[in-house]
Amino acid sequence: MSEKLKSLQQYLEKMNRFNHVANLLYWDLRTVAPKEGFERHADAMTYFSTEAFQMGTSEELGSLLAELSVPEEYEKLDDKWKFVVKKMKEDYDRDKRIPKELYERFVRAQAESEHAWEEAKNTSDYAVFAPHLKEMIALTKEITAYTDPDKEVYDALLNQYEEGMDSATIDHIFGELKKELVPLVEQILAAKEPDDSKFHGSFDVDAQAKVQKMLLDYIGFSWEKGAVGTTEHPFTLNFSSKDVRITNHYYEDMPISSMFSAIHEGGHAIFEQNVNPEYDGTIAGSCRYMGLHESQSRFYENVLGRNKNFWLPIYEKLGELLPQFKEITLDEFYREINHVRNSFIRTEADELTYCFHIIIRYEIEKAIFREGVSVEELPALWNRKMQEYLKITPANDAEGILQDMHWSGGSFGYFPSYLLGSIYDGMYLEQIEKDLGSIDTILAEGRILEITKWLNEKIHRFGSTRTPKETLSAVCGKEVTAEPIIRYFKEKYTKVYGLEK
Amino acid sequence: MSEKLKSLQQYLEKMNRFNHVANLLYWDLRTVAPKEGFERHADAMTYFSTEAFQMGTSEELGSLLAELSVPEEYEKLDDKWKFVVKKMKEDYDRDKRIPKELYERFVRAQAESEHAWEEAKNTSDYAVFAPHLKEMIALTKEITAYTDPDKEVYDALLNQYEEGMDSATIDHIFGELKKELVPLVEQILAAKEPDDSKFHGSFDVDAQAKVQKMLLDYIGFSWEKGAVGTTEHPFTLNFSSKDVRITNHYYEDMPISSMFSAIHEGGHAIFEQNVNPEYDGTIAGSCRYMGLHESQSRFYENVLGRNKNFWLPIYEKLGELLPQFKEITLDEFYREINHVRNSFIRTEADELTYCFHIIIRYEIEKAIFREGVSVEELPALWNRKMQEYLKITPANDAEGILQDMHWSGGSFGYFPSYLLGSIYDGMYLEQIEKDLGSIDTILAEGRILEITKWLNEKIHRFGSTRTPKETLSAVCGKEVTAEPIIRYFKEKYTKVYGLEK
Repeated sequence: MSEKLKSLQQYLEKMNRFNHVANLLYWDLRTVAPKEGFERHADAMTYFSTEAFQMGTSEELGSLLAELSVPEEYEKLDDKWKFVVKKMKEDYDRDKRIPKELYERFVRAQAESEHAWEEAKNTSDYAVFAPHLKEMIALTKEITAYTDPDKEVYDALLNQYEEGMDSATIDHIFGELKKELVPLVEQILAAKEPDDSKFHGSFDVDAQAKVQKMLLDYIGFSWEKGAVGTTEHPFTLNFSSKDVRITNHYYEDMPISSMFSAIHEGGHAIFEQNVNPEYDGTIAGSCRYMGLHESQSRFYENVLGRNKNFWLPIYEKLGELLPQFKEITLDEFYREINHVRNSFIRTEADELTYCFHIIIRYEIEKAIFREGVSVEELPALWNRKMQEYLKITPANDAEGILQDMHWSGGSFGYFPSYLLGSIYDGMYLEQIEKDLGSIDTILAEGRILEITKWLNEKIHRFGSTRTPKETLSAVCGKEVTAEPIIRYFKEKYTKVYGLEK
Repeated sequence: MSEKLKSLQQYLEKMNRFNHVANLLYWDLRTVAPKEGFERHADAMTYFSTEAFQMGTSEELGSLLAELSVPEEYEKLDDKWKFVVKKMKEDYDRDKRIPKELYERFVRAQAESEHAWEEAKNTSDYAVFAPHLKEMIALTKEITAYTDPDKEVYDALLNQYEEGMDSATIDHIFGELKKELVPLVEQILAAKEPDDSKFHGSFDVDAQAKVQKMLLDYIGFSWEKGAVGTTEHPFTLNFSSKDVRITNHYYEDMPISSMFSAIHEGGHAIFEQNVNPEYDGTIAGSCRYMGLHESQSRFYENVLGRNKNFWLPIYEKLGELLPQFKEITLDEFYREINHVRNSFIRTEADELTYCFHIIIRYEIEKAIFREGVSVEELPALWNRKMQEYLKITPANDAEGILQDMHWSGGSFGYFPSYLLGSIYDGMYLEQIEKDLGSIDTILAEGRILEITKWLNEKIHRFGSTRTPKETLSAVCGKEVTAEPIIRYFKEKYTKVYGLEK
């Protein structure tokens, strides 16, 4: 191995340790640390993150990457290190173009904006958040002009979260979805609603935690390489492929919520646990593409978890853990986990109307960055779009434009990832059925781990080394298309709701 | 504030952050981290501990302490900083006298010795551990000759864990205890044993965790400044007075075990949570005297927790959480938590025979360091002493001399702390009854938090700023004496076992 590569490895090793403890401090703050311990934890987190960030933008790292990028050095590297050096250099050069003063201004404004958003949401007062949102939009534009001078700003943002994606592609595939789903959802909402009364009441939270354990075992989560915690909002966090953690929140009166959070975060975790361990400690490990990541969590949550046969082998066990489910038939349960409602909150939406929640946000982001719609106009725009797609109008901005925190932190262009994930899922489903046969049969026969294995081999093990585009091409042999997910939605919900074809 | 003090504070701030994350890595490794995550966690822990250790012995710190120790600077410091500078300088000078090569040899030998002990214990094969024990004894002697050149080695070791304590004092007080307890325990063991059959069976571990929560609330543990975890062996760990954590282990068939572990670790935690928060981040905070620390955990566990009236206000609640306890009367429970048995394992011993477990270890440590008894002779010596004090002989070394890990890590002189803690407890009990009235009445009336408050004010808030000797003098107005704990033992157990006075 070349001396230069050895130096880079040593450099990464040290930087990783700082990131490792910053990550751990974050995990602990969310899952364990008591209230009064917050300050010292936060102080240490700031210190170690800042140190890691400085290592990630240091002149020393820049030189190491530059030296390894000259052809005679680069050609000596193996595939993994070629990927790492190339991507790190791109990231480094891009980040380096941001003036330090601008970056610091962004970090400060972000903290203030997130804080203001919290207050605005709690009091449903958009005016509290509006000036901060304006500032985050302005700073995002300013930064993007440095990082991606050759790209249109919104396309640059999309590309940051899902490499290779652009608004022309999304316009097309979201357009197809809209065309088909608007009439489908209209038909469903006109049909008879299932009775959900059995799903209210008091469901023991310790038992819900046992259900989570059962579900994670079932889908192939590894406890040798994973752990769970409890937080306000569920998330997944990974230190390496060997230590991937998820969290959940158990609501006493909403047992289905923690089940599907477990399956969703479990999907993220199974991805990370199965990345080639040789990529650990480099940017080749841990998937950096948000749409691709969501495609895994949503595949488990929706395509598998909301299939009736997913529950067939474990439904009796569910009744043993949560006795109220003994009084609920699998058919009733299946109807409820596919209960389509025109509701206000994205994170509580069903699989189908979820698409509209994302399309609304995507269209608003385009309005902001491309059509120059002002911050003042956004709540009205939001409400018009809710009416257009879901035929409802939020009673206030807390259940409208203020519900998600993404924009407060400057994460513009992130939302489409969720729906892209579902679109990829339709494509995987089609391919899996070609490769392994009917998914209904596989699930009914309790062979779900064969699907996990397929995903491991086709997607997970590559970590970040394949872009979403490359993944789709290698796995499904084609470009992104919404056609399979549309077919899936139509077939499934026509049956669930007994609609005319 | 002087510039020099400011420099020291900044230095400590940075050093604390490294210790903070090393501590957090330890906590997480024990409570959450999955098996395969061990390696990276351990690597980070080694890195940050080593960095912190180097900061604690650096020339830079030495100069800062030396500069602040010259009279004109020292006299300008407030009491807290006088204590910090004086003690840190003592520690620094002492540690500095250890040759680096010797210290490194010790660290390596310690890791190997702990590993060998584990194997020896698992296979009950003393021969596996003996050469390592020999090495740890030799290295301890060698190091102590540098750190405490003017002290006899065993006295130096005792003083390391309990400042101001020496073997002459311990000989005297342990002698008093032996004189009185040997006949008392003989009488008890000849009496009728209580029936413990109701305490076996299957006790839900989730419910045991709820009992722990109830007990911690009851004795005054703060959840704003504390958290709990689950581990193989219970322990307490503190980041500062504002973040103190305890762990527990829930055995399905031993519900009393987790209750008393909760109260014991809760006592350690209440101490740390109530240290003056201004001492946080310096050696004035967090009590460094092991006997004084144990005096708090054991006061809660034994003097309070094994008093019948401690349970009076909460016994019904206990039955609600663990329904089997509805079938057990408080009298039956009280007999069981004060069930005296001549058993082999220290950590499972009752309050009374526990004293002998410590005395045996103390006498063996003296035999090693003062009488030059060889490592080969120790198992036989152990077994003779078990026979002498407890009238039983271990079937093998795993339940004999190999049961505790202390010696494998070189912690010689630590064991007496446990019993010193109980001896102090007798003195506090006497003083509390003078100050607040009968402890039986206070407990029966559900006013236990008045006792916690008394301990907060008299002991906890001082952290490390008062040595054990100074504490006893300030709180009880006298030197250490076993007389009160002996009286407590005799009165209590005469009643519990209905013995002739």
